[in-house]
Amino acid sequence: MTIERRTLGPHDVLIDIDYAGICHSDIHTVRGDWGLVTYPQVVGHEIVGHVREVGSAVTTHKVGDRVGVGCESGSCGECEQCLKGEEVYCLKGNLQTYNGLDADGTITQGGYSMAIVVNDHFVLKIPESLPSEKVAPLLCAGVTLYAPMKHWNAGLGTKVAIVGMGGLGHVGVKIAHALGAQVTVLSRTLAKKDDGLKMGADHYYATEDPDTFEKLASEFDLILNTVSAGLDYSKYVNLLAVDGTLVILGAPTERVSVDAGALIGHRRSIAGSGNGGIVDTQEVLNFCAEHGIVPETELISADYINQAYERVLASDVRYRFVIDAKTIA
Amino acid sequence: MTIERRTLGPHDVLIDIDYAGICHSDIHTVRGDWGLVTYPQVVGHEIVGHVREVGSAVTTHKVGDRVGVGCESGSCGECEQCLKGEEVYCLKGNLQTYNGLDADGTITQGGYSMAIVVNDHFVLKIPESLPSEKVAPLLCAGVTLYAPMKHWNAGLGTKVAIVGMGGLGHVGVKIAHALGAQVTVLSRTLAKKDDGLKMGADHYYATEDPDTFEKLASEFDLILNTVSAGLDYSKYVNLLAVDGTLVILGAPTERVSVDAGALIGHRRSIAGSGNGGIVDTQEVLNFCAEHGIVPETELISADYINQAYERVLASDVRYRFVIDAKTIA
Repeated sequence: MTIERRTLGPHDVLIDIDYAGICHSDIHTVRGDWGLVTYPQVVGHEIVGHVREVGSAVTTHKVGDRVGVGCESGSCGECEQCLKGEEVYCLKGNLQTYNGLDADGTITQGGYSMAIVVNDHFVLKIPESLPSEKVAPLLCAGVTLYAPMKHWNAGLGTKVAIVGMGGLGHVGVKIAHALGAQVTVLSRTLAKKDDGLKMGADHYYATEDPDTFEKLASEFDLILNTVSAGLDYSKYVNLLAVDGTLVILGAPTERVSVDAGALIGHRRSIAGSGNGGIVDTQEVLNFCAEHGIVPETELISADYINQAYERVLASDVRYRFVIDAKTIA
Repeated sequence: MTIERRTLGPHDVLIDIDYAGICHSDIHTVRGDWGLVTYPQVVGHEIVGHVREVGSAVTTHKVGDRVGVGCESGSCGECEQCLKGEEVYCLKGNLQTYNGLDADGTITQGGYSMAIVVNDHFVLKIPESLPSEKVAPLLCAGVTLYAPMKHWNAGLGTKVAIVGMGGLGHVGVKIAHALGAQVTVLSRTLAKKDDGLKMGADHYYATEDPDTFEKLASEFDLILNTVSAGLDYSKYVNLLAVDGTLVILGAPTERVSVDAGALIGHRRSIAGSGNGGIVDTQEVLNFCAEHGIVPETELISADYINQAYERVLASDVRYRFVIDAKTIA
């Protein structure tokens, strides 16, 4: 099908898309899990491409540059959060790259597409050493893990657990390791243990084994939960050290329910975190380039998207699908 | 009745008790709400008195000093938390001033008593300007509010809400105001509004009014919840600004249940906090002396304790009962 992109405004960048990652959110959106969707809806917010044309006022990007677009494509630009580069928390509500209500009343269309027009502030620079066909997942999965690690000071001397070894989790392991943290993966089974250890995990435990929760009691400074299916959060809270924080990254439909005593007795916290602002998104790209971190991906053509969705839902991908945009249309 | 205090060890201080505050925890304990209690059990962990005798190795306190004892009377002294002065979070478990299992196998007995023997490290100095008959509540209520304000950086430029205008809440208002924060009280009704404003609150809202939750959406950096009866936590989480924290101080028996989206969208946190370590307890005493902060108390004699309990449960005290220990025995 054909979608229209808006005429280039003075601050717009027209990008020819090369690759687009498949994020679990894409599937939730197209299936209407998160509420009403206005169809047709093109999804995709892990976008990598080249600049074809820039608006008259654009100075930060030029024709031919390799660039990226992530989850957000607009925000008020004036509130306290935007001024900090935290557009993801814009106090007036930001513009999602897809399924967002744009200023002209249209619904934004995402990256499973041949081209896109995006405001220059929301266009990221892709560092040279990162391979085009693998970098896309850093624009959502990467920054979603990087931003909370930065906010809650993961690094040398801290113990970080990553819950879930999927598209988000595997990038989290690589980043946490590069930050110098001691990294533990908490995955349902040990099926991906070898991968996890190779990617930099120091420890790998199965959450289907009840011993795991006894053994690791009060162990972690930071637990990043990438699993959006409802968990028994109290079990994970009990794995936090004094002053530790459990951060929820994937929104479960069930409420988060915990025993207050487990929070009070160790001054523990449960927090939520969105993806990341433009500052953090550019930072994670630069950080990954510097540390040689590349997401593990499987390149597919557009006609494989429906099968890819089924495999994502079955956790049958190591570890992120990327669509080759040349195969679109 | 008569209880025995242990023989003075080299690091012990024998204190003649002058006053003891009545804390809601005392009532929960004597009634067995928090689990099995070994009776007879004397409660009370807001203790003010004078040193009668010191052990041979005690150098920090001397006979005649006016001193206090709070919720904890012992800890391992060697773990990371104890070394930071956070004995309340001792990794080996601390010794509660009452209903705690002491090293000699006996159950500790609290402050509704004529005298007590306490390890010198857990004996606080009462600054001269604080009146004996009113200072006791700082040793639990005071530090329970002060410690989280310090930990989560309440002060100039921050907006702090105190949920509940009781024994804990009213001291919280005074301390938050003195720290320079903008202070809002969220109480069930407006019955204590005049008091609240006099104590330093900038705003005072009734939580029985649904408009309150609309009007104050995304308003606060820190919400300190002193109400242990189950609340609809999601309503309070929605009052937090980006990066705001709701801290639970009184342990509800119900689980804490919130909508994950409300946490993720604004990077909000829910945390728990205990009372406070010895460093914070001495600090809150010094801080209150410096800022002329004194708890609002009603002095009672020992034979009034049962009636006082009924009035605490009916929220009919402004704002904390203190027992005159001269009337004991």
